[in-house]
Amino acid sequence: MFANTPTPPYYAVIFTSTLTSKTEGYEDMANLMIDLASQQDGFLGVEGAREEVGITVSYWKDLASIKEWKSNTEHQVAQKFGKEKWYDHFITRIAKVEREYSK
Amino acid sequence: MFANTPTPPYYAVIFTSTLTSKTEGYEDMANLMIDLASQQDGFLGVEGAREEVGITVSYWKDLASIKEWKSNTEHQVAQKFGKEKWYDHFITRIAKVEREYSK
Repeated sequence: MFANTPTPPYYAVIFTSTLTSKTEGYEDMANLMIDLASQQDGFLGVEGAREEVGITVSYWKDLASIKEWKSNTEHQVAQKFGKEKWYDHFITRIAKVEREYSK
Repeated sequence: MFANTPTPPYYAVIFTSTLTSKTEGYEDMANLMIDLASQQDGFLGVEGAREEVGITVSYWKDLASIKEWKSNTEHQVAQKFGKEKWYDHFITRIAKVEREYSK
């Protein structure tokens, strides 16, 4: 639920999206991608919620592991479906986490 | 709904939280804090959603504006209530957005 991330620095991919009305297959693919991402080198965790917009933040060791995941063959198929069918609009932001504090 | 952020670099504050059962007053305070944050120098936008966890990502021009907002008097009162009453657990991550792309 909370990503158990290490002491910074590490990276966050902040993915904000709205869906079209054609969401058939979306949920399954989203879950599959989270499973698959979790198996990648450099994956540190993921947090997500959806209301009016969906926000998924995945955490990664470095830029190289993000690049590797972006170019993963199955992920590329999912990205293509996402762009063409599921996502009305999205913004992906790549950010370097510099500090972290918690309760 | 989507934060209309400028060309990077800029900063993101990723705030992930779970609530206690004592949520009285929480929603009003959360909305008030978003209004107040929006009036601060360096505020660029905010995106949020809550399901099992809540994720609020606010975007800022630089670290100085984040620091300024963190020490805002009304925000400090809200933070105190949050820690003592509303939040079961939270993680705040300060991150520098290096890249952004969208559909």
